[in-house]
This record gives sequence, C-alpha cells and structure tokens, in this order.
Amino acid sequence: MNGTFYVIGVGPGDPELLTLKALRLLASCQTLVVPKGHEDGNSTALAIIEKVVPLAGKEIIEIHFPMKKIRMSAAPDPDVDAAWRRAADTVISHLRTGHNVAFPTLGDPAIYSTGFYTCQTLLELAPESRTVIVPGVSAIGACAASAGVPLCQGDDMMAVIPATFDNERLTEVLNSFQTIVLMKVHRVMDRIVRLLTEQGLLDHAVLIERTSQDTERIIHDLTTVRQDELHYFSSIIVRRR
Amino acid sequence: MNGTFYVIGVGPGDPELLTLKALRLLASCQTLVVPKGHEDGNSTALAIIEKVVPLAGKEIIEIHFPMKKIRMSAAPDPDVDAAWRRAADTVISHLRTGHNVAFPTLGDPAIYSTGFYTCQTLLELAPESRTVIVPGVSAIGACAASAGVPLCQGDDMMAVIPATFDNERLTEVLNSFQTIVLMKVHRVMDRIVRLLTEQGLLDHAVLIERTSQDTERIIHDLTTVRQDELHYFSSIIVRRR
Repeated sequence: MNGTFYVIGVGPGDPELLTLKALRLLASCQTLVVPKGHEDGNSTALAIIEKVVPLAGKEIIEIHFPMKKIRMSAAPDPDVDAAWRRAADTVISHLRTGHNVAFPTLGDPAIYSTGFYTCQTLLELAPESRTVIVPGVSAIGACAASAGVPLCQGDDMMAVIPATFDNERLTEVLNSFQTIVLMKVHRVMDRIVRLLTEQGLLDHAVLIERTSQDTERIIHDLTTVRQDELHYFSSIIVRRR
Repeated sequence: MNGTFYVIGVGPGDPELLTLKALRLLASCQTLVVPKGHEDGNSTALAIIEKVVPLAGKEIIEIHFPMKKIRMSAAPDPDVDAAWRRAADTVISHLRTGHNVAFPTLGDPAIYSTGFYTCQTLLELAPESRTVIVPGVSAIGACAASAGVPLCQGDDMMAVIPATFDNERLTEVLNSFQTIVLMKVHRVMDRIVRLLTEQGLLDHAVLIERTSQDTERIIHDLTTVRQDELHYFSSIIVRRR
C-alpha cells in the first residue's frame, strides 16, 4: 500500500475559501472520491472545487452517503455504515495500486464531516494506511465572519451543539456559555425561536444560511423565518455579550 | 471614506493554509497593518504571509498588541485598549485616503483574535467604515487534523474554553461535553494534567503545540511535558469517545 489518503476540507461554499494546500493536493491526486447526500443528486464538495481545481483526466468517484441522523451512543444506521465501508473499500483498492486519493469534504473535516468517518473506517479495515487530514475553513468561522460576530474573545467560552437536542439540554448550554453555535437548525427552527424568546436571547441571535455562498442570507430577526424554507446549511450564533 | 478594512484569517502557521481569498486580498491591498505580541519582536502573521504574498512596495505598519489577559466582564487593560485604538486610528486614516487596508490575523478572526477587537474599535470610532472579515483555518481545526481526532461527529457537543478557568468550572465542562478544547494551556499545564488525571481523562487528551508549523509537536502522554518549555501556541483536545 503506497498511496496516501487525503481528507481535505474545502471550506463552506465559496471556492475562494479553499486553502493553497487543498488546491495543490486536489490538483495532484489522480483519484478523487467525492461525497453526495442524494443518490441522484450532485456532490456539493465537487461543485465547489470544480471552479478552481483542474479536473480533466482525473478519476472522480461519487459516493452516496445517506443523510440520516447519527447518534454516537448507538450503532450507526446500516445504510450509513454501508456507505462508509463502500467509500473506505474504494479508497483502499486505489491506495493499493500506489495512487494517492483525495476526499474533499465541506467545511473543516473535524466538524461533523463525512470525511472523518470514512477515514476512521478505512483505518479500521486497513490500519497500515497512510492518511492525512487537511483542515479547512469551518462553516462556524465563516458564519461568524459573515455576521460580524466574534465567537470567542478574552475569557469567553464557546459551545457548539446540534439544535436537535431537547430544550432542557439546550437551555443549560445557552445559560452557561457566552457564545453558542446551534448547528442543523433547519428542521427545528420554530422550536428554537420559541426557546430563544423564552430565554430572552432572541435579540442576541443571528441566523446564517448558506454561509459564504452567493445565496447567503444573514437574518437578525429570527421570527421572520419560515422553517420549511430553510436550507440544510443553516446555523444560529447566540452571543450573550 | 472610500477604503475597505479587511480582517483576514491567515491560518495557524503553515503558509499553505492561507485561503485563495486571503492571498488575493493581501496581494491587492497597498497597506498592511500587522499585529505583533512583543514591542521588539516580529509579527507572526507577517512571517506566515511573507512566504506566499509578494510584499515589495507595500506599506507595512507593525502594531504592538501587549499580550495581557483580557476579561470580558471587566474594562480592558489600558495598554491593550490603547493598542486597539492606535490600530483603529491608523486604519481609519488610511481608509480616509481611499486605500484598502488588510489586517492579517492568526487562525480564524472570530476565535480569540486581535483583528476582531481592532475591527470593533474601528466601528465604534468610525461607524460608517466598510469592514469585511475573511474567515481562516482555525488553530482548533488544525489541531484536530494533526492529531487525527474529530471535534464533533453525529450528535456530539463541543466546548472551547480557556484553560485558565478554575478547576470547578473546567470539571463541569469536561463532564458535560464529548469534546473539550482547552486553549492557552501553556501557563497552567501542570494543574491541567493533575485535573485530567483526577477526572480519569488523561488517556483521552492530546496536546498539540505549534499546530501546522514545522516545529509542531503532538504529545499523547501529557505527563511527559514540562510546563516551562511549552510554547504559547499550545492546545489540548479532550475527547471522551
């Protein structure tokens, strides 16, 4: 096994938020394994990189990762687990031929990314593999930049939490941190707006949808948002200062 | 006032972790205001960008920001406040001549950066100013990538907290999150090692010093580290999984 597997953070959407390192490695790898959320859809990661990386002549393998909820305390959904294994098997077969393989992943690989699961599955199946994680601009940092809201200053503490947690847990976190980033808000927006109102935090919250993309929206009055129209790429930053 | 003020995240140290956007804006701005931590020292941000950005002919203004503790609940130290004002005044005088000004800042601007304070001070002094924050690769994401440890997966929650908090607060956070990133550990390392040992978390912790730089160290056995030799750029990731 001579090849190296690169999991590469490509940032939140704007192709200009790729790093020089991501650009160099994506350009130099012959094989790209790219994730997509819908069987018949397109890969968002591929759509980002094709604007800045020359892809002609490369082998591009799209792999469908079902968008199902993952609970870390339970065994993964069989379809999700199968996708990780399929991706890892594909990568391993290419590494064995001596080729390097790149796996572009949205945002930063360490934050809720398909790339990290694939890398971990690969290392379980073939522990001798050489893997490299290349950090990228996170959606969290991009949301903060767009909204002009700092995440941490001085002795601030920040919590990042999926908005799908129950109100009790959310309230506890909302009340003990200066900055709270609520991820994956699109399906629970109505409940979150009620909770933030109850906690007197509505004026401290800002919603960022599709951060860094041309269609980005920054919404300060959360009561104006219809839950059913929100894109999957939506986060709320609550800042108590 | 025609110019725009760009606060630009330049990543954690490896010049290749600059984004394409950072590179373009730093190359196009005639004036660069760069922070440095010691009056007689060099700017780390400048040392990073000079490897990839052509600087010949640019006006480079170094401003000393004293490295003093900032408590958000108290008024800032007068020396620190004076530095923010000095930086903001300098930027404003350049913007008024119609020039764009870039302020490169380490890591991501939203996470404990001098750039964000300067931007806020500038907007207080001259609210009509046009400012743009350009996100960068955070030290947190780079640490996770180097150590091969994810920050969040599935329904994980992450907390980012300065290690200088008291043990009671730290213990509370350590016990209620899956991932805890302890920042600024270099002066309190011995206490943190004792605390992690008491909490049975020593085997779940990894220290990353100077992430992404040539001199990076990844240390899994924290008991081998001498506090007095640790660099300022040191973080610990504790992951309970």
